[in-house]
Amino acid sequence: MAEAPLDVTTIGNAIVDVISHADPEFLIRQDLVKASMTLIDAERAVSLYDAMGPAVEISGGSAANTAAGIASLGGKAAFIGKVKNDAMGEIFAHDLRTAGVKFDVPLATDGPSTARCHIMVTEDAERTMATYLGACVDLTPDDVKPETITEAQVTYLEGYLWDPEKAKEAFRKAIKISHDAGRKTALTLSDSFCVDRYRGEFRKLFEYDIDILFANEDEIKSLYEVESFDDALQHARGHCDILALTRSEKGSMIVRGDEVHVIDAVKLGPIVDTTGAGDLYAAGFLYGHTNGKGLAESGRIGSIAAAEIISHFGARPETPLDKLVETHL
Amino acid sequence: MAEAPLDVTTIGNAIVDVISHADPEFLIRQDLVKASMTLIDAERAVSLYDAMGPAVEISGGSAANTAAGIASLGGKAAFIGKVKNDAMGEIFAHDLRTAGVKFDVPLATDGPSTARCHIMVTEDAERTMATYLGACVDLTPDDVKPETITEAQVTYLEGYLWDPEKAKEAFRKAIKISHDAGRKTALTLSDSFCVDRYRGEFRKLFEYDIDILFANEDEIKSLYEVESFDDALQHARGHCDILALTRSEKGSMIVRGDEVHVIDAVKLGPIVDTTGAGDLYAAGFLYGHTNGKGLAESGRIGSIAAAEIISHFGARPETPLDKLVETHL
Repeated sequence: MAEAPLDVTTIGNAIVDVISHADPEFLIRQDLVKASMTLIDAERAVSLYDAMGPAVEISGGSAANTAAGIASLGGKAAFIGKVKNDAMGEIFAHDLRTAGVKFDVPLATDGPSTARCHIMVTEDAERTMATYLGACVDLTPDDVKPETITEAQVTYLEGYLWDPEKAKEAFRKAIKISHDAGRKTALTLSDSFCVDRYRGEFRKLFEYDIDILFANEDEIKSLYEVESFDDALQHARGHCDILALTRSEKGSMIVRGDEVHVIDAVKLGPIVDTTGAGDLYAAGFLYGHTNGKGLAESGRIGSIAAAEIISHFGARPETPLDKLVETHL
Repeated sequence: MAEAPLDVTTIGNAIVDVISHADPEFLIRQDLVKASMTLIDAERAVSLYDAMGPAVEISGGSAANTAAGIASLGGKAAFIGKVKNDAMGEIFAHDLRTAGVKFDVPLATDGPSTARCHIMVTEDAERTMATYLGACVDLTPDDVKPETITEAQVTYLEGYLWDPEKAKEAFRKAIKISHDAGRKTALTLSDSFCVDRYRGEFRKLFEYDIDILFANEDEIKSLYEVESFDDALQHARGHCDILALTRSEKGSMIVRGDEVHVIDAVKLGPIVDTTGAGDLYAAGFLYGHTNGKGLAESGRIGSIAAAEIISHFGARPETPLDKLVETHL
C-alpha cells in the first residue's frame, strides 16, 4: 500500500468495560441472553451494576481495542470516538494514549456520561454484555477530522456504531474522505444482532463502500440469512476486495478473488475471557496488511493477537504483541 | 470467642488501585523506590498517572481487602473508611458491598476526591506504590459507629491510616469501644516506612492496646530497630496476646505465649502480583480465629488466601476462598 503517516484509523464506540464473574442464573434473572450484547439505558445500567458482583474497570470498545492492538504490534493507529470529561472518560483517554494510539477527539463537557459495557464472564469463559452507550451516541461528522482519515492507509469502522443517525453520517463522511484520498476502508459487522437490525444497510455498505470486511461465522450467516458457513461464503465472495471471516477455535478464512487462505487458530494457554478476540484478530490482520505482509501471514498475526487477548481478562493486550509475534509467527 | 453478629470489622484507607506494568527505569525516572509505598499529593498524582502506561482500575485498600477476603471465606465482615461520592468512590462502595462486606460510612459530598493507589508492577511481580490519600484523610471519630465495633469479635486496624490526627482519634475510639465491650483488637503495621515514622506510637499501641499483631519481617525488625528476624521475635514476644509474623516465601510464624507455630507458604501457580498478600493472610487468619479454628489451622487458611491473591493482578479474591480452603487445607 501507499506510504502514510498512519497505518489504521479506527472509528467506534468509546467504552469502559466493567468486568465481573457471573453465574448463568444471574443472566437469566437479569433477562440477558448468554454470549450476546444487549443495549441498555441509563436507568437499567444503574440497576444492573447494583446487582453485579465486584468488578474490574478496564478500557474497551471494539474499534479502540483494535487500535490498541495495532499499536502494541508496533503499528501506527488513531481512534475516533466520543467520551465525556468524567472519571471514566479520562481513564479511557489515558489508556488509549499511553498505549500509543493517537486520540484527539475533544471530550464532551455535558450530556450523557461515558459509555460502560457491563461484561459478565461465566465459568466457560463466554462473555455476556450489557452496554450503556452514553456519550458514544453523540459522535457527529464534526468529530471526524479529515486528516485523521487521509493520513491512514485503512479506515476501520465498527458495526456497533451504525445506529444513531449522526454516527452513520460520520461513517459515510469517513468513507468518502478515505476513498477520495485513494485510501481503503474496512468494516466489522460486530454482532449478529447488529446485522439483524440493519441487514439491508450493512449489505449495501459491504457491497459498495467497503474494501475489507471482518465478520464472524454468525454475523456473515445472518447477513445473507443462510444456515451454513459455506453458503454465506458463496454469497459474500466477490463483493469486496478482502473478506476475513473468523470462526473461533476453527480459525479463520481470508479470501481475495481466487486467493483463499485457511488460517488455524493459535492457542497460548487456557482461555480465560473471549472478550476482544475479534477486535484483536482485526488488529493483527490490519497491522500485517498495512505493513507489507501477505494475506496468510497477516491472518496468522491476527490469530496470535487474538490468542493473547483471550488468555486473560480484558480486551487490551497485556503482553507486547510485537514480541509475541516474533516468537510465534 | 464470644458469639457476635460480625466476625471482624476492619478500619483503613478506602482506595481504588490503578494497576499498570512498568520498567524499573520508569520507577527511577519517577523517583520512586522499588517495592515501597510513597505518599503523593494531588498534583503529583496527576503527573504520575499521565506518565504511567495503560492501567486497570480495581478496588483496593489494605483493610478493605482484608474485609473482602473474610467475606469470600464465608465470614461476616464490616469496613470503616472514607470515600467521596465520585465515580471512584461509587466503584469502591459497589465492589465492597457486592463482595458481601457491610459498608455504611456515608460518602463525602465535598472535599478531596476518592483515594487512588498507583501500583506499578515490574516483571519480577514486585509492586511499587504511589498513593494519593484524598478523601481518606477526612475519616473522623464520628465515622466509627459504636455498634459496628461492639458487634465484631475483632476490630482490625490498618497502620497506614495512623497519620492524620483525626484518624488516630478514630483508632483510639474504636479500640476503647472494642475493649469496653469485651472484644479484641488487631493491628497491622502495614509498611516499614509507617513504622519508621511512628515507631514510638506503634510500640505503645502494640504493647498496651492491641491483642493481635500482624507484621512482616521488615516491619517487625523496624519496630525494634534490629537486624535479624530472630532478634525482633525475642523483643516482640510476650507483648500482645497473638503475634502473626509473615515472611513471604518463608511462610509465617504464629506465637501466643509458649505456643509457637511455623506455617509454610502455599503456592498456587506462578506469582503474578504480590499486592495484597499480607492483607489476605490477615483475612485468612482472622476468619479462622473468629470461627473456632486453632492458631495453626488459622495460619494455614491465611497462607491459602495469600496464595490466591498473588496468583493474579489485584488484591481482591477472584476465586471464592471458601472453596479454595476446602480443597487445599
